[in-house]
Amino acid sequence: MRIESPRYTERVGSVRINDVQKVLELDSGRAKELPREEKIAVQKTEEDTIKDLEEKMAIIIPTKDEKLKLFEGVISGVPHECLIIVVSNSQRKRVDRFRMERDTLSQFCHFTRRQALIIHQKDPILAEALREAGYTELLGEDGQIRDGKAEGMMIAMLIAMIAKKNYVGFIDADNYFPGAVWEYVRCYASGFSMAKSPYVMVRILWRYKPKISTGMYFKKWGRVSEITNRCINSLISTKTGFETEIIKTGNAGEHAMSLGLAKILPYASSYAVEPQELVSIFEGFGGVLPMAHQAAAKHGVEIFQIETRNPHLHEEKGEQHQQEMLLPGLGVIYHSPLCDKDTKQMVLDELRQQNAISQDKEPSKPRLYPPLKKVDLQQFTKAIKEHIDSYSALEGEQ
Amino acid sequence: MRIESPRYTERVGSVRINDVQKVLELDSGRAKELPREEKIAVQKTEEDTIKDLEEKMAIIIPTKDEKLKLFEGVISGVPHECLIIVVSNSQRKRVDRFRMERDTLSQFCHFTRRQALIIHQKDPILAEALREAGYTELLGEDGQIRDGKAEGMMIAMLIAMIAKKNYVGFIDADNYFPGAVWEYVRCYASGFSMAKSPYVMVRILWRYKPKISTGMYFKKWGRVSEITNRCINSLISTKTGFETEIIKTGNAGEHAMSLGLAKILPYASSYAVEPQELVSIFEGFGGVLPMAHQAAAKHGVEIFQIETRNPHLHEEKGEQHQQEMLLPGLGVIYHSPLCDKDTKQMVLDELRQQNAISQDKEPSKPRLYPPLKKVDLQQFTKAIKEHIDSYSALEGEQ
Repeated sequence: MRIESPRYTERVGSVRINDVQKVLELDSGRAKELPREEKIAVQKTEEDTIKDLEEKMAIIIPTKDEKLKLFEGVISGVPHECLIIVVSNSQRKRVDRFRMERDTLSQFCHFTRRQALIIHQKDPILAEALREAGYTELLGEDGQIRDGKAEGMMIAMLIAMIAKKNYVGFIDADNYFPGAVWEYVRCYASGFSMAKSPYVMVRILWRYKPKISTGMYFKKWGRVSEITNRCINSLISTKTGFETEIIKTGNAGEHAMSLGLAKILPYASSYAVEPQELVSIFEGFGGVLPMAHQAAAKHGVEIFQIETRNPHLHEEKGEQHQQEMLLPGLGVIYHSPLCDKDTKQMVLDELRQQNAISQDKEPSKPRLYPPLKKVDLQQFTKAIKEHIDSYSALEGEQ
Repeated sequence: MRIESPRYTERVGSVRINDVQKVLELDSGRAKELPREEKIAVQKTEEDTIKDLEEKMAIIIPTKDEKLKLFEGVISGVPHECLIIVVSNSQRKRVDRFRMERDTLSQFCHFTRRQALIIHQKDPILAEALREAGYTELLGEDGQIRDGKAEGMMIAMLIAMIAKKNYVGFIDADNYFPGAVWEYVRCYASGFSMAKSPYVMVRILWRYKPKISTGMYFKKWGRVSEITNRCINSLISTKTGFETEIIKTGNAGEHAMSLGLAKILPYASSYAVEPQELVSIFEGFGGVLPMAHQAAAKHGVEIFQIETRNPHLHEEKGEQHQQEMLLPGLGVIYHSPLCDKDTKQMVLDELRQQNAISQDKEPSKPRLYPPLKKVDLQQFTKAIKEHIDSYSALEGEQ
């Protein structure tokens, strides 16, 4: 894969945010020694490097009652060397959709000889294991793991730690193009290969996001993303004193992290999770508040934003879903201790303009989960150890 | 890449037509020795094998006034090891679109360090070279190369021969997904790797072809394809005496051939080219008419049909285009010496039902070009030799 070298890097405390880098070539062929001057503009990530990183990567697919055809396509696009972890919150009553997902995954793994794990978010064993591991924040009043995409992602990250992976990458289950999924994972690997710090995050920017409701129109930005990015950039600008537009991936569902970084970030619930990750990084390592983690502060936290070649074509969830995404995302910005008066006002203006809140209200405070390093991983592993085999999609064949 | 092994093969004379094989996994990871029993159901093509074949392959992209953004995306999806040959019939007056295509290709090649050739179909040097090489059939009354996709493809195949490639693969320039283009080329390579004969053709079947005009509906078959396939299958059935549905890729624009096969087939003009290739194979090697080529008859001609994982999303050309494709395709079937009374009637019924011809008419006879082996390649090479550098997209930098 060939992508642009990072041309511009913004520094905020210990955080290094790289400007968007475009993918130039999906498949850049065999390894070849490049003249030094060529590396200045373009970064070629060799196949071997990509596969080395994929072997260390778990691809997490959170899903909830998604069309099986889409789910099947998504898993078929994940490169072979990655461990697939599906965390599902699909219905089990009336129609057992989880069972169908599991069967689909098993069949895929059977024919492609690969490893995958699938767990249900409401599995009581998981809830019990979290309780024993001293991390009850994720549990609701009914003693089960709470609903929400973020909550599923966190469970899957813990499973990735048990599987001794070094990286986690997230892929939404509603993508129409397996070839785009494949590209996302390669972008993750390319980003990791460029990182100088073990605390690294890669966020995907879609080249275009086609709107299919009105014929075919290739939009560069979703409205929600545009607003979220503007507010996060305002948050940064007021701290550095220089206006910036560096963040272009505030809502990136497709993103990846080293587990070193994943372990030390607090997470917000549901759709606030992706913008909160950035806010958490600025709070923890931006140099305004005390550093959240000494080693990470020393190495620095690196953020890569990579623009894919493939457009992003996914299930259209409609206007209501847009609002559902906007409000929690701006809520985390509004309630961040970093948030100044001007940015707060900007958030309120945007939300009111979109009719997302009424005139005299402010966005509600997001639910925040403490970093996963709080989990006693040994206890957690012990508690689910005898069940972990049952999460394997290949279980029946062992 | 992992695809299904061929489960069923239909034999017609020296022709072996394999039933559709699905792609299971886009990227099947590192080379690994598979137990023998696993190879029965699934075929894994190793990266090295794919790249070896890609090195021997020219990817031909015929284009005519296509959107530059689409063209740019398509070339970015072609694997690095392939030689790209663009044959353009875009306008050069008023706006010089050919120049824009050339610039786009040059920029891409510059940053990705790869080889590509681009030629204009109306380049007088090409016409002159064909004249000297004794192949004037491709020239119109004005002495220039005729318009048409087929005509462009034939020119590009000659260039691929000069470049000493062994395989040619065709990709339409109107594809929205670079990741799908990448998959097509890998399908070509996988097919070639399975072939037992040097006379081989790989045709792509799209998993789905989304209709975007009415929301998002995933159609399995276009109407034109459905009708064309039915008529070709009827043509075969009446010869073998067994009804068949084996042909599912009658109109496949995305297809590839060994140059050994490409050289000995007659081609039909414009949109009749893809169905005619199949008809030519049955005429030449189906055992009903005299064998067209002794070596090919001995080795047999192999046809693979591979179903991609990615849906096919391309520029919607509208109803009129559908008709423009249907008529010439059915014309080649109707006028084939293999075509019996029943199949002729089927063709007429279909065309009348689609209002493609009036009640008392029959489809006009397609223009047929003799096999490219008729071209005196030495003469042709000599005639364009001193110009070939100017077709290189990297020309300016040498």
